[in-house]
Amino acid sequence: MPHIQPGDDVAALLLQACAQAALPLQDGDIVAIAQKIISKAEGRQVYLPDVQPGERARELAQATGKDPRLVELVLQESTAISRMKMGVLIVRHRLGFTSANAGIDRSNVAQTGSDETVLLLPLDPDRSARQIRQMIMEKAGVQVGVIITDSHGRPFRLGTVGVAIGVAGIPALWDRRGAPDLYGYRLQHTDVGMADELAAAAGLLMGQANEATPVVLLRGLVYPVVENSAATDLVRPPALDLYQ
Amino acid sequence: MPHIQPGDDVAALLLQACAQAALPLQDGDIVAIAQKIISKAEGRQVYLPDVQPGERARELAQATGKDPRLVELVLQESTAISRMKMGVLIVRHRLGFTSANAGIDRSNVAQTGSDETVLLLPLDPDRSARQIRQMIMEKAGVQVGVIITDSHGRPFRLGTVGVAIGVAGIPALWDRRGAPDLYGYRLQHTDVGMADELAAAAGLLMGQANEATPVVLLRGLVYPVVENSAATDLVRPPALDLYQ
Repeated sequence: MPHIQPGDDVAALLLQACAQAALPLQDGDIVAIAQKIISKAEGRQVYLPDVQPGERARELAQATGKDPRLVELVLQESTAISRMKMGVLIVRHRLGFTSANAGIDRSNVAQTGSDETVLLLPLDPDRSARQIRQMIMEKAGVQVGVIITDSHGRPFRLGTVGVAIGVAGIPALWDRRGAPDLYGYRLQHTDVGMADELAAAAGLLMGQANEATPVVLLRGLVYPVVENSAATDLVRPPALDLYQ
Repeated sequence: MPHIQPGDDVAALLLQACAQAALPLQDGDIVAIAQKIISKAEGRQVYLPDVQPGERARELAQATGKDPRLVELVLQESTAISRMKMGVLIVRHRLGFTSANAGIDRSNVAQTGSDETVLLLPLDPDRSARQIRQMIMEKAGVQVGVIITDSHGRPFRLGTVGVAIGVAGIPALWDRRGAPDLYGYRLQHTDVGMADELAAAAGLLMGQANEATPVVLLRGLVYPVVENSAATDLVRPPALDLYQ
């Protein structure tokens, strides 16, 4: 994939890259796309000197040791603060999921190495995923699944892992409750976070900051095509979350 | 893989299965093995009528609506209770990680469909992984990575995902801090949960209860061989966990 600029058509560039790699997309393929290139194409860069931190942002910046302009953006992108302490600001993003700094990223943004430009998450990654899926269907005539991925830290376990923040055409959550196991015992709780497992698998190849591999093709998986799924299906409602 | 019985040599059976599939292991391959077959081979089945619940187990069974004999085993396998309510008992396992019911499983245990037998996690899955890696080296002369996987639920997000509870020969946590991104910006926090991403990728093929696919071969990944890694590297120390 080339470096992505605001206004770029990610679906078209992706199909071009597949053609160049002699890897034409097939029905059933799943395409995992790093959030960063979607955000860039959608023009979600923000130049920090343009940000005017409010009073709350300045308070939280003091409590966390973070840049008040960054904190202002985090607050604008989130609906609640989950946990904070010096060096840490974990929020519930407006999209529902919980992550550090509302997923706002400083790396791989400016080609000059400047750290004054940050990248917000896509406005509506589920919509972005649906649009890319639709474009691929129109341009290449194949029905694929699309996930938009990010890397999240998590409670209990160290290390970031790939997660899905946008999903189209595949189950985000695969409800296998009620399926019998090998011995006929009925499973009770086996909602599988399929889109997150796909995102983690893609993460192995994407690396963490390697924008050179922002797209991973997953082929050969058997799954039900779902038209109305969304990454927001993966968000645990606060009432069901003992850790909120 | 055949059905696993207590005392079975998982490494030998795995090499046999690879030979039958005409897929000989190669240096650098990573073998993901479902926890269940390790536990079975190690004889970690417990027949519930043999369990005598103590007073604390009976109290917690009442508060959670769970079988007091199961709760007794959960307590024996854990060092602390993380969260509980009706239907939910999340504990810190003696191995360090936090999971529901200490990872004790009722499915796929008895060939009769009885739910009176449960399966505890392996006694020391990191040791099991190291032993299997060593056996593969001795029998087949190849240096592979081994992970032992389980499925965990998680805070914030719905759906279970594969995680690593035993690791040998690969980084559990890949410390990429300090690596420059495309534009030379130094990354600050990019410890990647590599073994968990591998476990999630394997989980896509293992399914949830499909003991018919308890082993997944991952080939083609470039990674540093590490002799002294362990899945316990992935456990976030309580002092670093804002959600404990």
